[in-house]
Amino acid sequence: MEERLKKQLDFALEIDKEKNIFRQTHLSGHGRNENDAEHAWHMAIMAYLLREYSNEAVDITRVMIMCLIHDIVEIEAGDTYAYDTEHKKTQKAREDAAKEKLYSMLPEDQKAELIALFDEFEEGLTVEAKFAHAMDNLQPLLLNHSNNGADWVSHQVTASQVYGRQSKTKEGSETLYKVTEQMIQENIQKGSIKK
Amino acid sequence: MEERLKKQLDFALEIDKEKNIFRQTHLSGHGRNENDAEHAWHMAIMAYLLREYSNEAVDITRVMIMCLIHDIVEIEAGDTYAYDTEHKKTQKAREDAAKEKLYSMLPEDQKAELIALFDEFEEGLTVEAKFAHAMDNLQPLLLNHSNNGADWVSHQVTASQVYGRQSKTKEGSETLYKVTEQMIQENIQKGSIKK
Repeated sequence: MEERLKKQLDFALEIDKEKNIFRQTHLSGHGRNENDAEHAWHMAIMAYLLREYSNEAVDITRVMIMCLIHDIVEIEAGDTYAYDTEHKKTQKAREDAAKEKLYSMLPEDQKAELIALFDEFEEGLTVEAKFAHAMDNLQPLLLNHSNNGADWVSHQVTASQVYGRQSKTKEGSETLYKVTEQMIQENIQKGSIKK
Repeated sequence: MEERLKKQLDFALEIDKEKNIFRQTHLSGHGRNENDAEHAWHMAIMAYLLREYSNEAVDITRVMIMCLIHDIVEIEAGDTYAYDTEHKKTQKAREDAAKEKLYSMLPEDQKAELIALFDEFEEGLTVEAKFAHAMDNLQPLLLNHSNNGADWVSHQVTASQVYGRQSKTKEGSETLYKVTEQMIQENIQKGSIKK
């Protein structure tokens, strides 16, 4: 087998491990914890179906691939819960090391391409990155809302924490942010999110 | 909330159930059974990374979305194992009913679009559908090969069965079919696939 193809297949096998990285979010129907691969799959489909709500027209292929790969680094760096302030401090350093290690398995051109897409997502400056972030926020919100905010309850999350994270959705989609706000308000009223 | 957006979000929540549809394939490292959402995520990334090997140039967005949605019907219809002849007989009828039910949750235009993509995948005639099928075959093969063919062993699968399924990979990619053939031959020699 050609060296290039061997590298690509080795990488394809390596990322299988993302299915073992579990998040704090639970599946709908008060299910088990969700893993990163499932989260990424869900985000990519949602991006495709909801792309009409992006504040500006997006290149949907770039949004989808960003959604699909954005958590691969967690195979090495682990999942960092959105409201874990302590763990958040070391997140960038851990993920940068992981990024270099994992993407180096690919041929140079694809390593460069995927790292550029990952960095673009992390920086969150382009329309595609902003819309992908809106999905990264909306997808777990949708699940958690369907479970009566059980994940917020168990982590005793406050309104200002949720707003801090979710407010970035507005940069990707004003329309989807309105939905987000409705869900947050409902959960504050129910007491699932602390005031 | 607008009716259109409500329908899209209800559908987005409904497809969360795909994460509970488990397949016969096991994760690498002799892990647990894989579910449909993980399989679809893996296929979509592989399609993106391996698109240069398609026999003909593909519209990668269409390939990726086909990969991502191709198993949604299994939320209603259940997973049908590739080598389960009996269950295969009713697969199309079960999946057609599921398709109508699930995609009817979406606005009419998106229902039509996603059903057309699903049907295109099932028919397997376009270059995009052929390449998506190559991924549908290669992804579980890669995992099973990494586990020394354990899934073939436990289902006592024969070489002619594996070749029957995997030969279609050739229509999507001659190059990837060569890799497939190497993996199959290795597993026949090891005795994981019965002659």
